[in-house]
Amino acid sequence: MILTIPQDAFTPLLAKAQSVLERKSTRPILENILLEAFEGSLRVSSTDLRVSLCQQTACTIQQAGSVAVPGRKLHEIVREMPGGQVRLELKENGWLTVSSGKSVFHIPGVDAEEYPGLPTAPESFLGVDAALFRTMLDKTLFAAASDESRIYLCGVYVKTVQDEAGNSQLRMVATDGHRLSLSEQDVKGDLDPFAEGVILPKKGLSELRSLIDSSENTFDLAAAEGRVYVRVGKTLLSITLIDASFPNYQQVIPPEVEIKLYIERELLVDALRRVSLLSDQETHTVIMESSGEGTVLSSTNSQFGDAREELDSEFAGKPLRVAFNAVYLLEAIRSLSGNRVAFSIGDSLAPCLLRGSDDPHHLCVVMPMRID
Amino acid sequence: MILTIPQDAFTPLLAKAQSVLERKSTRPILENILLEAFEGSLRVSSTDLRVSLCQQTACTIQQAGSVAVPGRKLHEIVREMPGGQVRLELKENGWLTVSSGKSVFHIPGVDAEEYPGLPTAPESFLGVDAALFRTMLDKTLFAAASDESRIYLCGVYVKTVQDEAGNSQLRMVATDGHRLSLSEQDVKGDLDPFAEGVILPKKGLSELRSLIDSSENTFDLAAAEGRVYVRVGKTLLSITLIDASFPNYQQVIPPEVEIKLYIERELLVDALRRVSLLSDQETHTVIMESSGEGTVLSSTNSQFGDAREELDSEFAGKPLRVAFNAVYLLEAIRSLSGNRVAFSIGDSLAPCLLRGSDDPHHLCVVMPMRID
Repeated sequence: MILTIPQDAFTPLLAKAQSVLERKSTRPILENILLEAFEGSLRVSSTDLRVSLCQQTACTIQQAGSVAVPGRKLHEIVREMPGGQVRLELKENGWLTVSSGKSVFHIPGVDAEEYPGLPTAPESFLGVDAALFRTMLDKTLFAAASDESRIYLCGVYVKTVQDEAGNSQLRMVATDGHRLSLSEQDVKGDLDPFAEGVILPKKGLSELRSLIDSSENTFDLAAAEGRVYVRVGKTLLSITLIDASFPNYQQVIPPEVEIKLYIERELLVDALRRVSLLSDQETHTVIMESSGEGTVLSSTNSQFGDAREELDSEFAGKPLRVAFNAVYLLEAIRSLSGNRVAFSIGDSLAPCLLRGSDDPHHLCVVMPMRID
Repeated sequence: MILTIPQDAFTPLLAKAQSVLERKSTRPILENILLEAFEGSLRVSSTDLRVSLCQQTACTIQQAGSVAVPGRKLHEIVREMPGGQVRLELKENGWLTVSSGKSVFHIPGVDAEEYPGLPTAPESFLGVDAALFRTMLDKTLFAAASDESRIYLCGVYVKTVQDEAGNSQLRMVATDGHRLSLSEQDVKGDLDPFAEGVILPKKGLSELRSLIDSSENTFDLAAAEGRVYVRVGKTLLSITLIDASFPNYQQVIPPEVEIKLYIERELLVDALRRVSLLSDQETHTVIMESSGEGTVLSSTNSQFGDAREELDSEFAGKPLRVAFNAVYLLEAIRSLSGNRVAFSIGDSLAPCLLRGSDDPHHLCVVMPMRID
């Protein structure tokens, strides 16, 4: 493999490859990226076996070939190069020479054959509305679990459903058992890959979110053999689905109660952020008390004291006293749209349903905490 | 103590107080700041016993008084307040109520009597050129040691000297035993506090540097009883001098050799940064080889490979081969001024003298490393 490539085309590919790479893997090959030069292109691939990212850009090839090299180190080197063209040459001893101007680096390569096999893209892709997908991810991804002992919760459940009028809707749901977020949007045509419902893992979705961040219209989506593929330009992301059943989330969503509590969203976010400064550092408990007079948020920290915030609110039921984990409540409220938040609270131990005033297609559920 | 103070006047004082506070002190009182309200002013003081910062701003006092409270928590709270006026009220139980609008916080106070005594400013101060002091600190502070077992190296030695023509000069010197930096500048008048030579500790100098960062002309300086005092506006910083003798640094500075090596400074910084990517991660060794042909920098890392950079240079002596710690060499070269760096190197084990082409008043010494 001998090629030259402009530094300013190579560096961003290497930068993007980093987030997929394993940092300290039990399989050192996963700290490497695969470089493949063929037909006027350099392909840069990184994988953690579950998420794979293949990027491609034009280069001038003198001799085709491929090699795997330490991904982080190559990025550090190329990023610091003086500019202009970077030259890569695979030596017979398996080392890669990286040079530019009067800078010459040798880094150890691994035979490309030893690099894990990368998924091949299916032939046909669907066009998916990028803005819609971004919005729905931003409204749900935060609620997914991180604890891999319950792997079925460590992602977002994505499924197409029909509404009562027979229109197709895309639904995303995430929950970690303490809170849940569900977003639904009308979609045109079928989204076959999601017809049966799939669980897409958090890390893969973070990559997807960043890949479509600047997509103006649509991105390409396909599914095959337990994987979802996303293509934007010459970049292909493949994500292995979580092979598990998503729990019956419908039963967690409480019915809407008639008497609701309404609070200005921005004021509530600010007040919660302040009160949480003095919440218990482990449980993050804040207490919310509402009546016809308004709403009071309060917290107590055994070391640093206590906090109390009064907020105007609209509420006509009998006085309520509920405890929440401030972090969960804040993340839920931040994901909502509109000026006002509507709380549906049955009683102080029942799941609390939250909606934003501008978005009937999104709901959050936060479990209250038991307090004395 | 009962007072009100605008949030936007209070927050920056609390922010500045943080860097002096101890994070996790064996003396918990040092995690507190002292608030003192008297004569229309609030004074905010923080100290680690060696460095103390007293700031002052106008407020509306209903009842004078003082209390010490957790400094980091108070900053977090006041910073998040909704804006407008913040009200402080010291309760009879010793707690401080911090409120603004409908936000009310109670935090535990400590009797002001228990707060460590703060140094009182001497009556007379000298005016010192702020730009000159900033430049000299930036050229020396980096070379001070961090290892407190050699406390006499953990600061900058500051002394006024007379040049051959009898003019006053301010000299700053710092060294950690591996490198040294010396800066000298003409000063008008006497700088009595530095007549005998004092060692100012790193942390205090960092505070000083940040305090005078935006001083346009002069700042006020005084010395008394083993301390140096710096006053900018209503802020007083006091720094306890390191009570030790500074080593005889003159003997470390090698004589200028006749045959020098000259290299473009920016190119050298870039090349060193690249080569250091593949230097040994513990020793940071880079090898510099110079001859009439130019200069080659190289490094080897047992895990990640090797690097080599060629640089144009001006050199007429017999070929040289010297090893340096790349971090020390880079920091020294970055502190120099001018387009070119001049190296005076006697031999591969002798201290190396570095000067920038635009600044005859500054020199660095870097000790080479022994290699085989």
